[in-house]
Amino acid sequence: MTTLRDIGENALLKSLLPLLPQSRDVLVGPGDDCAVTHLPGMDVDFLFTTDPVIEGRHFLPDTPPEYIGQKALNRCLSDIAAMGGAPCWALVNLVAPGDMDAERIRRVFNGLLSASEKWGISLIGGDTAEGAVLELHVTGVGQIPHGLAVLRSTAKTGHSIFVTGTLGGSYLPGVDRHLLFEPRVEAGHYLAQQGWTSAMMDISDGLGTDLPRLLDASNCGAEIWTHKLPISPEARQAKDERTPLEHAMFDGEDFELLFTVPRYRKDDFIYEWRGIFPQLPVTEIGRIFESPKQRFWVDEHGTSMPIISGGYEHFRTGHRSRQ
Amino acid sequence: MTTLRDIGENALLKSLLPLLPQSRDVLVGPGDDCAVTHLPGMDVDFLFTTDPVIEGRHFLPDTPPEYIGQKALNRCLSDIAAMGGAPCWALVNLVAPGDMDAERIRRVFNGLLSASEKWGISLIGGDTAEGAVLELHVTGVGQIPHGLAVLRSTAKTGHSIFVTGTLGGSYLPGVDRHLLFEPRVEAGHYLAQQGWTSAMMDISDGLGTDLPRLLDASNCGAEIWTHKLPISPEARQAKDERTPLEHAMFDGEDFELLFTVPRYRKDDFIYEWRGIFPQLPVTEIGRIFESPKQRFWVDEHGTSMPIISGGYEHFRTGHRSRQ
Repeated sequence: MTTLRDIGENALLKSLLPLLPQSRDVLVGPGDDCAVTHLPGMDVDFLFTTDPVIEGRHFLPDTPPEYIGQKALNRCLSDIAAMGGAPCWALVNLVAPGDMDAERIRRVFNGLLSASEKWGISLIGGDTAEGAVLELHVTGVGQIPHGLAVLRSTAKTGHSIFVTGTLGGSYLPGVDRHLLFEPRVEAGHYLAQQGWTSAMMDISDGLGTDLPRLLDASNCGAEIWTHKLPISPEARQAKDERTPLEHAMFDGEDFELLFTVPRYRKDDFIYEWRGIFPQLPVTEIGRIFESPKQRFWVDEHGTSMPIISGGYEHFRTGHRSRQ
Repeated sequence: MTTLRDIGENALLKSLLPLLPQSRDVLVGPGDDCAVTHLPGMDVDFLFTTDPVIEGRHFLPDTPPEYIGQKALNRCLSDIAAMGGAPCWALVNLVAPGDMDAERIRRVFNGLLSASEKWGISLIGGDTAEGAVLELHVTGVGQIPHGLAVLRSTAKTGHSIFVTGTLGGSYLPGVDRHLLFEPRVEAGHYLAQQGWTSAMMDISDGLGTDLPRLLDASNCGAEIWTHKLPISPEARQAKDERTPLEHAMFDGEDFELLFTVPRYRKDDFIYEWRGIFPQLPVTEIGRIFESPKQRFWVDEHGTSMPIISGGYEHFRTGHRSRQ
C-alpha cells in the first residue's frame, strides 16, 4: 500500500490536478494562489481560494482562540492579495469536538469577525460539524478588474525579484507571526493595479519552497542573493539549530509577497513604493534567468548553491557535503 | 463549562449569525441554503454554499470512496438547486490521515470528478491537510439571473406545500440514497425560472426538522397531511423501530426539494410538471397557514399533532402521551 505520506500532498495534487475539468469561464484553475473565473460581459474577474486551519498543524491547543479565527481568514486574504485582488466575501466551515467549551468557539468567531471587519469582508455562509479536533475551513472570494490578476506563471527573463517585509522566525517562541501576520492586501492590490509586476505569489511555505513553485510555473530559473535577504529581527536573534539565513529561507508562514518587476522599471518602482508604503520594506533579492536549470542561491562572496525544491533538509545536506 | 453539545450546533449558529457583518452586495447572508451576492450592473446573482462531509458522521470507514466524493459535491449542488440556481464552480478541501492509502484518495477524487462532469462543474481549487479522519469540505458556487433566487423566507399564507421524489429510508441497509441521491438541479432551476414557487429549500435533515426552518424563516404555520406524504418504497418495507411514516418525516438526507406554490396555480403547475419531469414525482403535502403557532401534522382521520422542531424524539414522545 502506498500511503498519502509516502507520496506527499504536493505530488498527489500534481497527479490529480490535470484530471480536473475546467470550462471556458475558468481563466486560471487550481495551482495558483487563487482560481480566476470570468463570465461573459463582466468587467470583473472573481478570485477563489480555500484554506484549512487545523489544530496541531496550524495552531496549538493553547493558541488564543481569537488568533485562530484571525489566521484562518487572513490566510485566504493573503492568497487574494497575491493575485492583486480585493477580497469581498468568505464562507467558514467549523469542525469541533462536541465536548469543546462553547466559549472557545465564540472567541474563534471573534477573531474571524475582527479580521473580516478590518478588511470589509462579509462572512456570508458556512456550516458546523463535530470532529476530533478544532478545524476551520475558510473559502475566500475576491474580485479584480478583468484581466488584471497577477499569476505566478508569468515571470520574465531578466526581471528583478522582490519580497515585501522581512522573512523568517514566524514560529519562534514569543513571535507568533504565523498567527498575527498582516495579509498584504493593499500592497498586492497596488502592485496589480499599477501594473508593476509580471508575476506574484505569497510566501506560505518559505522562500526556499515557494520560489521554486513560481519558477516551475513560469518555466524559468533565478539567482537569489542570500546576503540581500531581509531577515526578520527575530530570526537574526534566534538561538537554535537554524542560522538566521536558514530561518528566512525555510521557516515559512511569512505571508509576504514574492514578485517580479521589469529591471528597467525597478528604480522607479522602489521610489514610488517608498512613498506609498513607508512602513513596509520592499527588497530586491535576485533576478529571473531564462533556463529552468539555472537556479542558485548566491552569497556575498559569489559562492553559489543550487536551489532545490524540498527546502531546509536538502539545503542543509548540500551545505554539509560542500564543507 | 458549557460545551458545544450542550448548546447544540444550531443554537450556537443562531447566536453567532446576527453578529456577522454583511455589506450591501450581500442580498442573502447565512441561514438560507445558499448566500446570494450581487455586484452593481451585473445581470446575474451568485450563490455560495459550503458543506462538510466527515468520516463517521456523513459516511463510514467502509463506504466506497467514489460515493464519498460524489456525496460531497452533490450536497452543495442540492443547496444551489434549492435556490433555483445553476451550479458552475466548486472548491474542495481534503483532510486525510498521513497513513491513508493514496488509492482511497484517488477513488474519492474519481467520485468528485464523475459528479462534476455530470453537472458541468469546474473544480477550480482546493487544498489538502493531514488530520485524524477523512473529511471533504466542498464550497459550491452557482449563478442565477438577478433577483430570481428562491428563498426559504418567502412562503405565503394559503400556498400549497410540495415535495419532489419520495421521502425516508436514505440510511437503511442496502439503500445508500444518502450517498447516491441525485441533486434536483434541473427541477430547482425550472421552478425558479418559471416563477412557480414562492419559497423553497432542500430536505437534508428530514421534513420534520427542515419544514419548521422554512416556517420560522417565513414566520408562518402549516398543516401537513401525513397520509399524503410520498413515503419511499424502502421506508415502507423497513422492519425496525420506526414506522414508514416516521422514516419519511425524520430520517433526513433525502435531498428532495420542499417548496410552496400559489394555490390557484397548483393544478396548472402539476400538469406542466408531469410533462417536463415524467420520472420525478411531485406531491402536494399540505398548505401554509398565517399564524406561526398553527403547525400540525394531520392524518386521514383529521387527527392532528403539533409540528415541533427537534424531530423524531419529540414526535415519538407526543404520540405516546396521546395513546
